[in-house]
Amino acid sequence: MSMVLTPLRGFPLVKSGDDLVELTVQALSVSGITLREGDILVFAQKVVSKAEGRWVNLATVTPSSRATELAQQIEKDPRLVEVILRESRAILRTRPGTIVVEHRLGFVCANAGIDHSNVAGTGTEQEEWVLLLPEDPDASARRLRAGIQDRFGFPIGVMIIDSHGRAWRLGTVGVAIGLAGVPGLVDLRGKPDLFGYRLRITQVGAGDELAAAASLVMGQAAEGTPVVHVRGFPYPLREANLSELLRPLEQDLFR
Amino acid sequence: MSMVLTPLRGFPLVKSGDDLVELTVQALSVSGITLREGDILVFAQKVVSKAEGRWVNLATVTPSSRATELAQQIEKDPRLVEVILRESRAILRTRPGTIVVEHRLGFVCANAGIDHSNVAGTGTEQEEWVLLLPEDPDASARRLRAGIQDRFGFPIGVMIIDSHGRAWRLGTVGVAIGLAGVPGLVDLRGKPDLFGYRLRITQVGAGDELAAAASLVMGQAAEGTPVVHVRGFPYPLREANLSELLRPLEQDLFR
Repeated sequence: MSMVLTPLRGFPLVKSGDDLVELTVQALSVSGITLREGDILVFAQKVVSKAEGRWVNLATVTPSSRATELAQQIEKDPRLVEVILRESRAILRTRPGTIVVEHRLGFVCANAGIDHSNVAGTGTEQEEWVLLLPEDPDASARRLRAGIQDRFGFPIGVMIIDSHGRAWRLGTVGVAIGLAGVPGLVDLRGKPDLFGYRLRITQVGAGDELAAAASLVMGQAAEGTPVVHVRGFPYPLREANLSELLRPLEQDLFR
Repeated sequence: MSMVLTPLRGFPLVKSGDDLVELTVQALSVSGITLREGDILVFAQKVVSKAEGRWVNLATVTPSSRATELAQQIEKDPRLVEVILRESRAILRTRPGTIVVEHRLGFVCANAGIDHSNVAGTGTEQEEWVLLLPEDPDASARRLRAGIQDRFGFPIGVMIIDSHGRAWRLGTVGVAIGLAGVPGLVDLRGKPDLFGYRLRITQVGAGDELAAAASLVMGQAAEGTPVVHVRGFPYPLREANLSELLRPLEQDLFR
């Protein structure tokens, strides 16, 4: 069976307070897609954050002395560094322009996932606003799923994704940051291979593989297709959340 | 436009010396897929390695004292550790059962990508054989592409993938290890976002995102679908190779 990923057409610019469920239902219709049980909708973090009003006006931020000092080291706006630190549990590494952090949500990423592009402020202050990640992306995903299921009357999956860099490879790739009904890990332990041996690979990051696939067809920037419809995800849908994809600190060899 | 990923049906077990081009042409036919210009075929590393006869009989391996010492520390077969070290440029970390290495091909992965599952040896010695990665996966990809293009008369892309763990997230994900005609990185620097700002995200690991997507539909183990047909990859095909996806050592913050 094929897996088909289709970016929804006709998704408008999202403002604080917008009803993403309603916008998604409309965009599905515009795109000529009839949602079916077991389909998955993947949302770019950016539109979820915008709908949730996760803006911070940098003009209102007073950097701490720690943020000011770090900002000088890495040549970054001290107010932005302050916001990054507030969203983080720990700093792992720094280099010019970038702070690699453990985000308060548990994952490791650059600059706490704070987005300085596609930022809509007000008039001349546009560049003073930055967008945080959703407060609780798993909860956001569950709300989106519940709202969409209410409209259609059957179970689907919802995932919220962002783009992260990697330690040893270049280029960002899509990763899951919020899950509702989509498995993050698929456990293949004990399944026999073709010759009856037990597999050595124990767990597949199926949720992140789906995130990468959706990110690929979303594109970036001007295309403006922040929601992707997925049909044919090859594993059963089930309850899940982000934590199953995060390596526990005691297993971390690279911190 | 949708991106459609279809695992090919009817792909047989692959033996040393098998003609993967011929097997792929047959499997496309069995699967009812008419290949088109611009389509991409993604191959699991395992079938490429098998066709290339990349077997090592552990009974023929004499571990060095270094391999023997390391094997004792991490509780692993010293002959297998010896083979892993021969395939690696550097050891980054070790833990029970696992050596994280810089592979001679340049990427960081566990156990030099040496596969101890799905191993076909001879008779009672089955478990004594392990499978190395292809000697030069970019060259393997180019040969496959050339062979398939010769049959069909138009340009396509070919990628060879493997499954790697990640530093801070659980679960393996598909990554590119050989590229022919498929971009590894897509450079978005300077493209304006919706408000005309320059993007901060500079490069998307599109090849790895495609690898993850293909890995997802390939499944693992008993399914036996090592080749995936892709239609609708959203970026133009171009010449590329693995090196563009590898972070140079001087940019590595986590070694």
